[in-house]
Amino acid sequence: MIESRIQITVRYAETDMMGIVYHGNYLPWFEVGRTTLLRENGFPYRELEAQGYLLPVVELGSKFFKPAVYDDTVTVITRVKERPLLRIRLDYEVRRGDDLLVTGFTVHGFINKAGEPVRPPVAFTEKMRELFRSEGEPAAGK
Amino acid sequence: MIESRIQITVRYAETDMMGIVYHGNYLPWFEVGRTTLLRENGFPYRELEAQGYLLPVVELGSKFFKPAVYDDTVTVITRVKERPLLRIRLDYEVRRGDDLLVTGFTVHGFINKAGEPVRPPVAFTEKMRELFRSEGEPAAGK
Amino acid sequence: MIESRIQITVRYAETDMMGIVYHGNYLPWFEVGRTTLLRENGFPYRELEAQGYLLPVVELGSKFFKPAVYDDTVTVITRVKERPLLRIRLDYEVRRGDDLLVTGFTVHGFINKAGEPVRPPVAFTEKMRELFRSEGEPAAGK
Amino acid sequence: MIESRIQITVRYAETDMMGIVYHGNYLPWFEVGRTTLLRENGFPYRELEAQGYLLPVVELGSKFFKPAVYDDTVTVITRVKERPLLRIRLDYEVRRGDDLLVTGFTVHGFINKAGEPVRPPVAFTEKMRELFRSEGEPAAGK
Repeated sequence: MIESRIQITVRYAETDMMGIVYHGNYLPWFEVGRTTLLRENGFPYRELEAQGYLLPVVELGSKFFKPAVYDDTVTVITRVKERPLLRIRLDYEVRRGDDLLVTGFTVHGFINKAGEPVRPPVAFTEKMRELFRSEGEPAAGK
Repeated sequence: MIESRIQITVRYAETDMMGIVYHGNYLPWFEVGRTTLLRENGFPYRELEAQGYLLPVVELGSKFFKPAVYDDTVTVITRVKERPLLRIRLDYEVRRGDDLLVTGFTVHGFINKAGEPVRPPVAFTEKMRELFRSEGEPAAGK
Repeated sequence: MIESRIQITVRYAETDMMGIVYHGNYLPWFEVGRTTLLRENGFPYRELEAQGYLLPVVELGSKFFKPAVYDDTVTVITRVKERPLLRIRLDYEVRRGDDLLVTGFTVHGFINKAGEPVRPPVAFTEKMRELFRSEGEPAAGK
Repeated sequence: MIESRIQITVRYAETDMMGIVYHGNYLPWFEVGRTTLLRENGFPYRELEAQGYLLPVVELGSKFFKPAVYDDTVTVITRVKERPLLRIRLDYEVRRGDDLLVTGFTVHGFINKAGEPVRPPVAFTEKMRELFRSEGEPAAGK
């Protein structure tokens, strides 16, 4: 499993008249978590796009337990739990201290600039194999 | 089943550098669909809040098949398929002509201004019973 | 002068915890007004971009008199008061019935996809000359 | 003069199909700068609201010199140049390294929860007098 953590402070712009963060505004936070995880694991999303790969969201889901409010500093925890093959799934938790506020996931496919599905870059696939082997597979298997 | 349709024209602000609508920006469209459905069925959300009821999102999900792009006019179709009891679930489709672009759902609970779970207003419950009886239940049941 | 009007219904997503529309969320409404004005005058912005022209904002300003709130239907009035040469300036009013809520303006330059300043397309310049001649210049001047 | 600096990393959600940050999305960055400046000077905006004071924007303006793009880390510099009396004006610069990308300002009035204009809290006025006296007025004047 790969995991990454990043802190976000809630903007006034992200609240709604209910006095809490608008539900749709957690998705950019998930994106911040995703960007952080990819960067920390050697694949900045910016470079993936520069190489001609796009990672559009094909599916997402989210559950809301407690609301975040203006000026809260929350932690977004992002995880890739299974080695990505043609698609990559990321899971997210938004926490304020020990409180679990929101969970979610996104699934992404790889496409090229023409919008056609493509295989991930070889370097990405190799890196993921390495990351998931190092922690997940039995030593004897190597 | 209750159903409602509303057209939305894509704003430039809703696109991202991928050249398509940012995935998180479909959620405000679902909200426009929801607002329309409630208004058309006699329960403007604005009045629900004025009466002290809030309907925060407790769960949501979405699948993305084809992207909407700037200046597209799309139709958001919103449905309540089952009579809401303590929670209400809405299902959404975003279509451009015959093309299905995105599907999604949201589940909402009723809370009061203090953030405590409450029963829906009696008039709402009665109206829903009426709407779902009229189409869904056998005539003999009345 | 060219003028265009379009109605917008306030989304919950556009409000903030002050219970009113977040000030930054008027800018996408100005953009809706701009898109409408260009379309109604024969130059859909979508086609300008397809022809390789971009119109980034180089300056903007806004004044806020009264707030718009959720579910309000407001009218955005967009005007081009002077014939655009290398730059185009648009002025906006947001009204709710007779009430003036917000005024604003944006100034745009023409650039190409490489980000370099360019002259507007000839057809655009011609069309603007025609529109502003027809209403603004004395008949004897033709 | 009071000054505050804060770094922001550009989110994908903040870009548009032009490949740059959407002009309206700089306003939440100004707000982050404002929140930071108020907090660093002993008046967290969160507490001002808790005490019943709101600071809606009554006027704003912005100029755009160079665009910020996805994953850039920029610095927002916020300044209060003159001692606020009934209104407070803040000036902003967005920089990427030495490059000046965007400038802007916002002017805010104080209102109460009923939406009526009010004087700033006495402690705020006192604090501002102190901050601006300490740096701005001649020593002999004390």
